[in-house]
Amino acid sequence: MDCVFSLTKFERMTIINLLYKTKGDSMSTIKDVALLANVSVTTVSRVLNRRGYISEEVRRKVEEAMEQLDYYPNQIARSLQKSQSYIIGLIVLDSNNAFFSELTKYIELFANEKNYKILLCNSNNQPKKEESYINMLKQNQVDGIIMCSHSIDIEAYTKINLPVISFDRVISNQIPYVASNNHQGGVVATEHLIGQGCKCLLHICGSMDIDVLPNKRTEGFIEVCKSNDIHFKVIESGHHNLIFDKTLMFIQESILPIIKEFDGVFCSSDLLAYALYTSVTSIGIKVPEELKIIGFDNDSFIRMLREPKLTTIAQPIKSISKLLTNKLISLIENRDSAIDDDIVDIKLIKGDTT
Amino acid sequence: MDCVFSLTKFERMTIINLLYKTKGDSMSTIKDVALLANVSVTTVSRVLNRRGYISEEVRRKVEEAMEQLDYYPNQIARSLQKSQSYIIGLIVLDSNNAFFSELTKYIELFANEKNYKILLCNSNNQPKKEESYINMLKQNQVDGIIMCSHSIDIEAYTKINLPVISFDRVISNQIPYVASNNHQGGVVATEHLIGQGCKCLLHICGSMDIDVLPNKRTEGFIEVCKSNDIHFKVIESGHHNLIFDKTLMFIQESILPIIKEFDGVFCSSDLLAYALYTSVTSIGIKVPEELKIIGFDNDSFIRMLREPKLTTIAQPIKSISKLLTNKLISLIENRDSAIDDDIVDIKLIKGDTT
Repeated sequence: MDCVFSLTKFERMTIINLLYKTKGDSMSTIKDVALLANVSVTTVSRVLNRRGYISEEVRRKVEEAMEQLDYYPNQIARSLQKSQSYIIGLIVLDSNNAFFSELTKYIELFANEKNYKILLCNSNNQPKKEESYINMLKQNQVDGIIMCSHSIDIEAYTKINLPVISFDRVISNQIPYVASNNHQGGVVATEHLIGQGCKCLLHICGSMDIDVLPNKRTEGFIEVCKSNDIHFKVIESGHHNLIFDKTLMFIQESILPIIKEFDGVFCSSDLLAYALYTSVTSIGIKVPEELKIIGFDNDSFIRMLREPKLTTIAQPIKSISKLLTNKLISLIENRDSAIDDDIVDIKLIKGDTT
Repeated sequence: MDCVFSLTKFERMTIINLLYKTKGDSMSTIKDVALLANVSVTTVSRVLNRRGYISEEVRRKVEEAMEQLDYYPNQIARSLQKSQSYIIGLIVLDSNNAFFSELTKYIELFANEKNYKILLCNSNNQPKKEESYINMLKQNQVDGIIMCSHSIDIEAYTKINLPVISFDRVISNQIPYVASNNHQGGVVATEHLIGQGCKCLLHICGSMDIDVLPNKRTEGFIEVCKSNDIHFKVIESGHHNLIFDKTLMFIQESILPIIKEFDGVFCSSDLLAYALYTSVTSIGIKVPEELKIIGFDNDSFIRMLREPKLTTIAQPIKSISKLLTNKLISLIENRDSAIDDDIVDIKLIKGDTT
């Protein structure tokens, strides 16, 4: 697929020599840096590539020399040399959504610690946009992709031919995934509502069209309801549950007319839970006295919110981000190694809405 | 600076030919695509580069042929050919903050429309991190930088030697900026508080250490207070006003002890205003009866928030993002053209806190 990888060593060296060709006096070379810092070219190269042991003093000397000479190695030439761009593609549904915004922030932070950069792509849950991003990322020779958007069929991902790691979806044996223990989340949320005295439960989830791991929240909910002989109902909110205004409209049109049949609701996101809370309290239903509400995510919006303190199932967003980033980098740097999937623990956060 | 630019045409062609060299039957070339789509190589190239007029039918034929042949032009080779990477570096303070998260989302959206990608960098307002990002972006041959973080001295930016556009800061004549009319925002907010009957005003701003355009909000506040003979005070919240918990701590330690001296507060961000609102209502102060509060930004957090509906000065985040992106792309594609600065209008959003 990647024609750079198919060049012979001689051809590569030809390119690199051409790229590193100096332009009169106006550009510094790695040799100038080595000369000024009084170290070998190999040492400068080690500092640049963050490989091998380098003492703090030597690193400082080299960095000072680079700064003095205004030397910046041409990353395009370096990526040809190493067949690596040190760029990771990150595809999220919507980087302005509180959950994905925090995931993006931490992935960027952990990638930066290992000298990788993030190319950010918002799919807005549109299959066409997601596909065109995947093609774009291949063209730009990213080293790998973190997929946090799942609007297209599995086949498209298996054809990617680059290291890929997935959040919240099982794609294939070759593509490791990271997810919260969604099933356990559904179980804990439902048991909590029953423990607080609920007899009639509603579960509002996203769309079940695509087989993603958050669907297991619904499975956990149904299992617990059945084993406790609880009357229950499941309603899908569809794909638009990332945008608050649309979520609010959905709640008002589809949930308010039937809400009085229930005394407890498990929402599959905090956004749904907050939209439900504001809608029911505005028509005089008392939370938690008449209706108990539990969300999912413990996202940065809900953590900032003071009224109400929402009861929710917390996903460990920072740990998820770290696992996604570090596992992808392992795949990139050591392509043959087997990378396990990871299922991380969730936690009940008791607020004032149950 | 950029050694790729110093190559002769012959040297460039050598590299491109090497890069485009096919690897047996396993890789398709642009010629294969042209043959299959029954068009010229020039036409395929036009479709790839989105240049010149191409009918929908021809575009479709070419795209289908590309898909059939699994053809992805090597972007590294294309960037050598065109001396462009089609990557824009975006440095923000914190991509999880509601304001910057929305700015990032829209910049990515508008860049994508013009075939550019976003390399996302979070400075976390740390000068060292911001500097290392600027160096990293130079190494990675981005085509330009959108600077939305301003923790370092102006000199560092003027040395960048790439197209740069700045949000909220005047850097130099060579670097255009986009900003809201911050002065007008300060004036409108203060006049609104006085119009609602306030006699003693407090203004909580960020840090005045660095000369950025939002400082003009404070100038507007002071001017209106003076011309209306209003008793006033200005307090700086420092650099930590992007993180809610720290903002809350600052409000409780530095503002609550003196809050009873005032009947109106103009906060320079919605985050400050929300932290103030929750802190004062928790000690029994009635808003807006005893204390009126106005914020700044109308960020996505505040727009979602139902309790309270905060009175605030709205910055047009979508327009700002579009201006920043389109102006930078103009600078990149037409380096000699003069790009004007842009100051966009703010708007008072009347909520329940005044």
